[in-house]
Amino acid sequence: MDVTKITSPQILKKMSTEELEALSADIRQFLIEKLSKTGGHIGPNLGVVELTIALHKVFDSPKDKLLWDVGHQSYVHKILTGRACEFDTLRQYKGLCGFPKMIESEHDVWETGHSSTSLSAAMGMVAARDIKGTKEHVIPIIGDGALTGGMALEALNHIGHEKKNMIVILNDNEMSIAPNVGALHSVLGRLRTAGKYNWVKDELEMLLKKIPAVGGKLASTAERIKDSVKYLLVSGMFFEELGFTYLGPIDGHNYQELFENLQYAKKTEGPVIVHVITKKGKGFKPAETDKVGTWHGTGPYKIETGDLIKPVSAPPAWSSVISETVRRLAREDERIVAITPAMPVGSKLVGFASEFPERMYDVGIAEQHATTMAAGLATQKMKPFLAIYSTFLQRAYDQVVHDICRPNLNVFIGIDRSGLVGEDGETHQGVFDIAFLRHLPNLVLMMPKDENEGQHMVHTSLTYDDGPIALRFPRGNGLGVKMDEELKQIPIGSWEVLKEGSDAAILTFGTTIPMALEAAELLEKEDVSVKVINARFIKPMDEGMLHSLLEDCMPLLTIEEAVLQGGFGSAVLEFANDHGYASPIKRMGIPDRFIEHGSVKALLEEIGLTTPEVVRTIKTIARRKQKRA
Amino acid sequence: MDVTKITSPQILKKMSTEELEALSADIRQFLIEKLSKTGGHIGPNLGVVELTIALHKVFDSPKDKLLWDVGHQSYVHKILTGRACEFDTLRQYKGLCGFPKMIESEHDVWETGHSSTSLSAAMGMVAARDIKGTKEHVIPIIGDGALTGGMALEALNHIGHEKKNMIVILNDNEMSIAPNVGALHSVLGRLRTAGKYNWVKDELEMLLKKIPAVGGKLASTAERIKDSVKYLLVSGMFFEELGFTYLGPIDGHNYQELFENLQYAKKTEGPVIVHVITKKGKGFKPAETDKVGTWHGTGPYKIETGDLIKPVSAPPAWSSVISETVRRLAREDERIVAITPAMPVGSKLVGFASEFPERMYDVGIAEQHATTMAAGLATQKMKPFLAIYSTFLQRAYDQVVHDICRPNLNVFIGIDRSGLVGEDGETHQGVFDIAFLRHLPNLVLMMPKDENEGQHMVHTSLTYDDGPIALRFPRGNGLGVKMDEELKQIPIGSWEVLKEGSDAAILTFGTTIPMALEAAELLEKEDVSVKVINARFIKPMDEGMLHSLLEDCMPLLTIEEAVLQGGFGSAVLEFANDHGYASPIKRMGIPDRFIEHGSVKALLEEIGLTTPEVVRTIKTIARRKQKRA
Repeated sequence: MDVTKITSPQILKKMSTEELEALSADIRQFLIEKLSKTGGHIGPNLGVVELTIALHKVFDSPKDKLLWDVGHQSYVHKILTGRACEFDTLRQYKGLCGFPKMIESEHDVWETGHSSTSLSAAMGMVAARDIKGTKEHVIPIIGDGALTGGMALEALNHIGHEKKNMIVILNDNEMSIAPNVGALHSVLGRLRTAGKYNWVKDELEMLLKKIPAVGGKLASTAERIKDSVKYLLVSGMFFEELGFTYLGPIDGHNYQELFENLQYAKKTEGPVIVHVITKKGKGFKPAETDKVGTWHGTGPYKIETGDLIKPVSAPPAWSSVISETVRRLAREDERIVAITPAMPVGSKLVGFASEFPERMYDVGIAEQHATTMAAGLATQKMKPFLAIYSTFLQRAYDQVVHDICRPNLNVFIGIDRSGLVGEDGETHQGVFDIAFLRHLPNLVLMMPKDENEGQHMVHTSLTYDDGPIALRFPRGNGLGVKMDEELKQIPIGSWEVLKEGSDAAILTFGTTIPMALEAAELLEKEDVSVKVINARFIKPMDEGMLHSLLEDCMPLLTIEEAVLQGGFGSAVLEFANDHGYASPIKRMGIPDRFIEHGSVKALLEEIGLTTPEVVRTIKTIARRKQKRA
Repeated sequence: MDVTKITSPQILKKMSTEELEALSADIRQFLIEKLSKTGGHIGPNLGVVELTIALHKVFDSPKDKLLWDVGHQSYVHKILTGRACEFDTLRQYKGLCGFPKMIESEHDVWETGHSSTSLSAAMGMVAARDIKGTKEHVIPIIGDGALTGGMALEALNHIGHEKKNMIVILNDNEMSIAPNVGALHSVLGRLRTAGKYNWVKDELEMLLKKIPAVGGKLASTAERIKDSVKYLLVSGMFFEELGFTYLGPIDGHNYQELFENLQYAKKTEGPVIVHVITKKGKGFKPAETDKVGTWHGTGPYKIETGDLIKPVSAPPAWSSVISETVRRLAREDERIVAITPAMPVGSKLVGFASEFPERMYDVGIAEQHATTMAAGLATQKMKPFLAIYSTFLQRAYDQVVHDICRPNLNVFIGIDRSGLVGEDGETHQGVFDIAFLRHLPNLVLMMPKDENEGQHMVHTSLTYDDGPIALRFPRGNGLGVKMDEELKQIPIGSWEVLKEGSDAAILTFGTTIPMALEAAELLEKEDVSVKVINARFIKPMDEGMLHSLLEDCMPLLTIEEAVLQGGFGSAVLEFANDHGYASPIKRMGIPDRFIEHGSVKALLEEIGLTTPEVVRTIKTIARRKQKRA
C-alpha cells in the first residue's frame, strides 16, 4: 500500500497478520528509498517496523502513551500517525523532525533526543494517571544501550519499587550506536540464549504458594527454594529481582509472538518488561550486516550498492584529527588513556582502540561514569582523554564540577560537536558548553581556528599538567589546511592576531573565524580597517591583548557559535567592566531560545550569524577615521 | 587508649581482636564527645568504626586505596590516619574538613561530598594500576543509599563487564540519609534475611564444572541448572549476574567476620562485593534508634540526654516555609505532587508526605530521575514540585535543559541551600546555580528577600503555567518576619524598590539584601543616597526598572551570593551593554575559585561580601552631589 495515505494507526486495527506483513515490507521500502535521499537513522528504524506496528495495533495511542527513548527510532511511528508525506523534508529546516515532537502530533507524548529519559518520564505519567484514577497504559520503548544510562537505571530501581502498572519495552538489538558494553549486556546475552519465555511461571507460583510458611529461617529458606526453581524455569531473574514481571525474549519480527506478549503484558498488574529482540537495519543488507554502527545514522546513499554518497575529497573530520593526534601522542606517552561513552565510531577512536586496546575504554552510554573514571585515572598521574559530545557533556556537569575541577585534576576533555550540529536539532545543539563551563574554577577552555591548530591544542592539552583542560571542536570536517609535521605548544591563554586593523576588532574563535575574516575584507573595501583576533582561549582569556585593545579604546565585536547569556562575549564585557574600560562592545551569538533542526547554514542565517550581519554591526561601532571627521 | 596519639594505621597491625574492640569503644567515646561540641555526621561514623579499623588492618593504606563514597563517614579513617587531634576544629573555617581531602593526608586518595562517585573513580584507579602493572588493592566503600545513584549503577555495570580486580565494600545500613527507597533496597533486604555467606559456592562450582557440556541447547540448560542451584545456595545473585563475586551479608560490627571476608576478597580474582551490615549511630542510643535521619548529621548536642542544642526560638527554616506552603496549596489543588531525591527530612516534606502520601515521591538518591519524572508529571498537566538542593541540582543539569526547559514544561523547582552552605564546604556550596541556569531558555529564576515573599513566590510558581519556574532559597532559617495570611501573586519579572536613593543603586536579592540595606543606611550618614532594589527575579529581569535606572545614568552595584562569572551581575552588564547605556556598574559576588568550609559569616568575610566592602564600593561609583561639586 501507499504508506503516505495512512492518516492514523486506526487503520491497523482490522488488518490481518498477512496484511501487516505486507505493510511492514511497504514501510521498509519507503524508508530505504526516502532516507537514501535525505539521510537519517536508517538502522534503528528498520529494526522496529513490526514492533511499532504491533504496539499501535495492541494499544490505543494517544490515550495509551508510547514514549520513544532517544527517539531516533520513531520514524515508523511517524508514518503510522500520518506523517509519511512529510518524509521528503526529514531533518531539514522547517521540515519533519528526526525525533518525537509534541507539536507535530498528539501521538508524540514525550520528546527525546538524549537517551535514557523515557523510564523517568513514564514514571511521572503513571504517577499522574494513578492520582487522576484513569486507566491508560504507559509504554516506554527503550534500547538495551540506553538502559545502561544512569538515569534509566535510577528509574528502573524506582519503578520496581513503586509497583505501578507500566509496560517497558526493552528493544534489544545488541547495539547502542556501536556494539554495547557492560555487564547488563551480558545479562541480556544470557537471556537471549536461554530460550523462550515461560508462562508456566504463573502456575508455578500458585503451586509454590502452597508451601507452608513456617516462619523465621524456614520461611526464608522456602522463599529461596521458590526463587531458585523460578530461576531455573524463568529467564529474567535480574529484572524480576528488581520488581518487574519479565516477558521474553521475543522475536521482534514475529507478529504472533509480539501480539501474545503485549496482550499478556496489558493484563499484568505491576511493572512489566517485555524483552524484544530486533535486528538493526532489518531488510536492508548493508545496514543489517553492519557491525560497528556505520548504518545507525547516515547521510544519503545508493540503494543498489549501499555506498554512502560522500563529497569527493572532503578534508578530514574534526573528530578524526583530534583522536588521531591523541593516538600519535599515545605512542610516546604511556599514560594516555582514551574514554568514550558509547561513541567509539563517532569520536573516531577506532584506530586508537585497535592500537592501544588496553588503554581504551568504551564505557557504554554512561557519561557520568566516563567523566569520573577519567578523574580517577588522573589521580594516578595518568593522562585521560575524555572524548564526549558537547550535548552529552551536559549529563556530566556535576562530575566536571565536583570530580574534575574541584580537585583540579589533569583531565583532557575533547568536546566534540560543539556549536550548532544541524539536522539533529534542538536536543543536540552544542551551544551551552561555554556557558556551563566558563564559570568553573581551574578549567582551561579553548577552541582551534583550524585542524592544524587543533592538533597543536591536543599536544598542548596532553602536556599541560596544571589541571583540567577542555578542547571544543565542531561537528563535521576541518578546513583542509596544511598540517604541520611537528606538534607545537600553544601558550595557555594566548590569542593570535589574524589580521591587523585600526577601526574595530573582532574577537572570535573556531567556526566563526572565516566569517570574521570575510567581513573584514569586505569592510576594508569600504575603508573600515578591522583587526581580527583568534580568541582561541575562552578561559583564561589573553588579558594582555585585551588590556592593550581596551586601553586603545578599540571598539570590539565578539562572535561565538554558542549562547550569548553568560558566554564568551559576557566574559569580555566582565573584563572590560572590571577594569573600567569604556570601549563600545557588541556581542553576536545564539539568542535565548532553543534552536531547531536544519542545515547549520540555514540556522546561522535564521539567527543572524552571517557575514553581512558582522559587516553591519562593525559599522555601528567602528571608529571614524580622522581624515573623515 | 588516647586516640589523639594515633599517627598511622600501622598501629593496628599488631593489635589483637580484644585490643581492637577496646579501641573501637575509645573511638566511639571520642566521636560522641567531640561531635557533641562541633556537630557533624555522627550517625554514619559510629556505624563504621569496626569496618574502618578492619579495612586499615587488612589492607595497606595509602598503597592500597580506600575511597569513601559521599565521605561523611570518613571520621574514623581520619582518626586512624593521625588527625584525631584536629577534631576540635571539625568543619570549621581553616579546620579539619568533614570529608576526605587529599591535602590533609596521603591516605585520602579520593575526595567526595556528593554521593555515588567512588565506583567510577575506583574504576579509573584500577585501569591505571593495570596499565602500570602494579598490584595494589582499590577499595571503594559505598552505602546502600549511594548505590542507587545513576552514576554508581553505570559504574557497577562497567566494572562487572571489565572484570578487573576491585573490592567494593557495600556498607548497608538500610538508610541513605532518610530510610532508603528503591527496588535495589528490596534486593538487599532479601539478602539480609537470607542468612550467611556461603563459601560452599567455590566447591559447588568445581563440581558443576564437571557436568559435561554437550553443546547447543543442552549446554545452555546445564548452565541454567548450575545457576539455579547456585541461586539456591548463594545469596547475591543480583550482583553475581552483574559479574561480581558476592560475599555476605556480614555483621559489620564483628571483627572475625570482617577479617575473614576481607582476606577472602583480597585473594579473589575479578570484582568482589563485600556486603557489610552496619548500624548507623551504633553505640549512641539516640542515634542508634533514629528512624528518620535526624542523627545523620547534627549540630552540637547534650550527650546525657541526646537533646540537640538549638537556639531558643529560631525563625522557621527556609525549607519548612517553602514545603509547608506547597502543602497548604496542595489542599486546594490536586495536581500538586512533591518529589524529593532522598531528602524528605532536609527538605521538610515530612508533613506533606503524611498529608498527601499518594502525591509524594521520595525517589532515593536519583536526581536525574527525580527531575525527568517531574517533567513526565508536567506533560500530564500536573503541578510537580521538585525539592532539590542547589548542589545536587548540578547532577540534573541536562535533565533541566533537555527534559524541562526545551519542551517548556510547567515544573516548579525549589532550589534549596542556594548560596554558601558553610560547614559542608567546597563540595556543597550552592554557588553555581545562577550561572548554570541563567542561560537556559524558557526558565524563570527567582529568589525571595524573606520567608514572607518566599511563600508568595511558592504561590506564584504553582499558579504559573507558562513553563518552568525555579525558586532559589538559602540554607538555614528565615528572618522571622510576619507572614501574610493571604497568599499573593508576585508579577513575573518585577523588582521592588526597598529604599529610595539618588546617588547610586544596589541591585541584589535574597540573603545579601540586609547587607545592602545596612550599607545604604551607613552611607546615608555620609550624605550618599543609595537606592536599594530587591532584584528578586534573576531571570527575567525587570527591564522597565533597568531602563529607567540606566536612562538616568544611575551608577549600579550588583551583589549576589553566587559565582560572578556568568551570574546576575553579568546579566545586568549584558543588558546595559546591549542597550548602549554607560552607567558605571560594579559587581560583587563569589570569585573564580572553590570556597572551602567554615561558617557562612567567616566565608563571606574572606571573599569580601561584607557591609564595609559594599560601602567602599558604592563610594567608588556614587554620583557626587551638585552641592559638593
